[in-house]
Amino acid sequence: MARIVMKFGGTSVGDVNRIKNVARRVKAECDRGNQVAVAVSAMSGVTNQLVNYCSEMSPLHDAREYDTIVSTGEQVTTGLLAIALQDLGVTARSWQGWQIPVITDDAHGKARIAEIKGEELIRRMEKGEVPVVAGFQGLGPDNRVTTLGRGGSDTTAVALAAALNADRCDIYTDVDGVYTTDPRIVPTAKKLDKITYEEMLEMASLGAKVLQTRSVEMAMKHGVRVQVLSSFSDAPGTLVCDEDEIMENALVSGIAYSRDEAKVTLVGVADQPGIAASIFGPLADANINVDMIVQNVSQDGSTDMTFTVGKADLERALKVVKDQLKVPYKAIKSDKNVVKLSVIGVGMRSHAGVAKTMFKALAEKGINIQVISTSEIKVSVLIGEDYTELALRALHTAYDLDAA
Amino acid sequence: MARIVMKFGGTSVGDVNRIKNVARRVKAECDRGNQVAVAVSAMSGVTNQLVNYCSEMSPLHDAREYDTIVSTGEQVTTGLLAIALQDLGVTARSWQGWQIPVITDDAHGKARIAEIKGEELIRRMEKGEVPVVAGFQGLGPDNRVTTLGRGGSDTTAVALAAALNADRCDIYTDVDGVYTTDPRIVPTAKKLDKITYEEMLEMASLGAKVLQTRSVEMAMKHGVRVQVLSSFSDAPGTLVCDEDEIMENALVSGIAYSRDEAKVTLVGVADQPGIAASIFGPLADANINVDMIVQNVSQDGSTDMTFTVGKADLERALKVVKDQLKVPYKAIKSDKNVVKLSVIGVGMRSHAGVAKTMFKALAEKGINIQVISTSEIKVSVLIGEDYTELALRALHTAYDLDAA
Repeated sequence: MARIVMKFGGTSVGDVNRIKNVARRVKAECDRGNQVAVAVSAMSGVTNQLVNYCSEMSPLHDAREYDTIVSTGEQVTTGLLAIALQDLGVTARSWQGWQIPVITDDAHGKARIAEIKGEELIRRMEKGEVPVVAGFQGLGPDNRVTTLGRGGSDTTAVALAAALNADRCDIYTDVDGVYTTDPRIVPTAKKLDKITYEEMLEMASLGAKVLQTRSVEMAMKHGVRVQVLSSFSDAPGTLVCDEDEIMENALVSGIAYSRDEAKVTLVGVADQPGIAASIFGPLADANINVDMIVQNVSQDGSTDMTFTVGKADLERALKVVKDQLKVPYKAIKSDKNVVKLSVIGVGMRSHAGVAKTMFKALAEKGINIQVISTSEIKVSVLIGEDYTELALRALHTAYDLDAA
Repeated sequence: MARIVMKFGGTSVGDVNRIKNVARRVKAECDRGNQVAVAVSAMSGVTNQLVNYCSEMSPLHDAREYDTIVSTGEQVTTGLLAIALQDLGVTARSWQGWQIPVITDDAHGKARIAEIKGEELIRRMEKGEVPVVAGFQGLGPDNRVTTLGRGGSDTTAVALAAALNADRCDIYTDVDGVYTTDPRIVPTAKKLDKITYEEMLEMASLGAKVLQTRSVEMAMKHGVRVQVLSSFSDAPGTLVCDEDEIMENALVSGIAYSRDEAKVTLVGVADQPGIAASIFGPLADANINVDMIVQNVSQDGSTDMTFTVGKADLERALKVVKDQLKVPYKAIKSDKNVVKLSVIGVGMRSHAGVAKTMFKALAEKGINIQVISTSEIKVSVLIGEDYTELALRALHTAYDLDAA
């Protein structure tokens, strides 16, 4: 007997028949003798419709009312799935965030879960009842409904698994697991059986889009084993778990890419103490996230400073720099046609040569590297966007990741 | 300064622009120096869509889950109207049934309001805030969402007005008041300035379809003055109030009709003590409502018994009588092509001759009366359905109700 949280996203519960299909999957898990709790998203399209209502009503709307409106999507799914389960003879009931409660902070629209009171749900699961919990939503300190931000249902599921001391959290989605890279670009990409939290975190935040980053952070923090699998097939998925559970770590587990970055270069900026602070302080104050930073070797008392920001923030970032930079500089240039490729693997902690392989493979294809940054378990490079597919395939082969 | 509850139905909040229109009306009421609370329905069409989801999922679905699902329609409207009000500079916030709370019994799908805790709302209204309250929903004793049955938002509004000690409850709808009869059939029908609770109750339950019957009962019980008016025009509406507020009661205030009844006749039934109980007992046990009852004078130890039931219940009623009636009878006949006309007026308490005028007017048009029943403030007759329009117009004229 295991205790399992199953999470189904918007596509998996997209219409009445798909919800019935989900109910059958839940019942099958119960029939195996497991205790099951379910977390669900809104039916696909519903959240967008509700968000559009808010925007049409007023471009600048109260985040508390936004949460009141948008959280109804998940509420509908919980009721419908509970009915579908009952129809199959499974005892089930719906739970909204305020009923459990799922306690969050008051950051409406992007709230963080503080605590889930799991006792009552555990008591009922032990009697064979299946709680169907609304993802994405919680109860703020002001007794109002909060939402966790897009993709927040993953976080709900993982937090629920932690609160219920579940053995596993199964995230059902429209892909059947985590791949070494994007299979649409690299047909030889392989599905991973297991991946560590740390690697998954890099994969998620670098654009692999399988799990919400915060849900992986939470899983790592609470040691929740997360399985990513497809709600439309019976193929085994990918288990996201602690390093200890993985017998031998691959040098490189996967290659992620992100087209969401833009590059900014300050040319001929005076090279003096405090210059980095004077550039990046105002950007931080303006809530603009800076990712990669490179400073050239100084020549004649001036240097070039290159950094990347989210594409959506580029115009604001340029304005902040132009308006607030007190240090003299020659020119400011920007480029949106860039892509960030990242080679990820916990194995590289103990192995040298990973970066060298990357640079060599890219050089052989004549691809120019614009910016490099590294961390303990990844190497990232910024290259021209046109080279994305070519580079991904070259790296996939260079690290021996191609399926046999 | 007055304290007013304004209620807007589904058509009035049917889309974003209509909700903005509602916000302007609410602001106008605030600008007059009044304290305002608002109760809203779901956007038109939304509730039907949600009900359909439930039926598609399972014909026999859990009423608690139905309530969870269907109540989201009102929740969306409260958030959108709060945003629209804020956009006009009015301080406003949405309130769900569970937040106030609106405490109900546990009769999911048709719950009755037990109490509304109004203190917090009053405190906020006194500071100029406008509470936007979800109609139709409440919180049951099991901490789950309940709904009040179709049209329940009227009841929410009236109960809210009672809890807030409001001076008036304005029900905005797609008609601009209560008419002496259906203006689509009788073009000379007049809008009433005022009508008593008792009369409105008869009008509502007899098919005038302006206000939910339970909301009128509640208004009468708590002495809430209710105004029915159009959300699409500025014409004055109809005030439903205590008899004391109406200077001189008309003999007849209005003429209602209902096509929802069917007639059953038991021919040649043995006339013996206990016969009525033996017919109507089983019908009551089967939850079939019997409205009008007539027993003919007995001849040769047998009699004819005629009664009416709701059209939807006719087949069941016939089966119950055939299966369970122990008393001998010759035949059982039924007729769906009937209509019930009712002449209503508190003035008839102190005046004779109302019934006589009715019978004379119908006789002059050659209309045969099949069943008659009377109460303190109404006279009802059952006639052939084909005569509905002819009879309505004749009675409207006979009682001097035609507009000049």
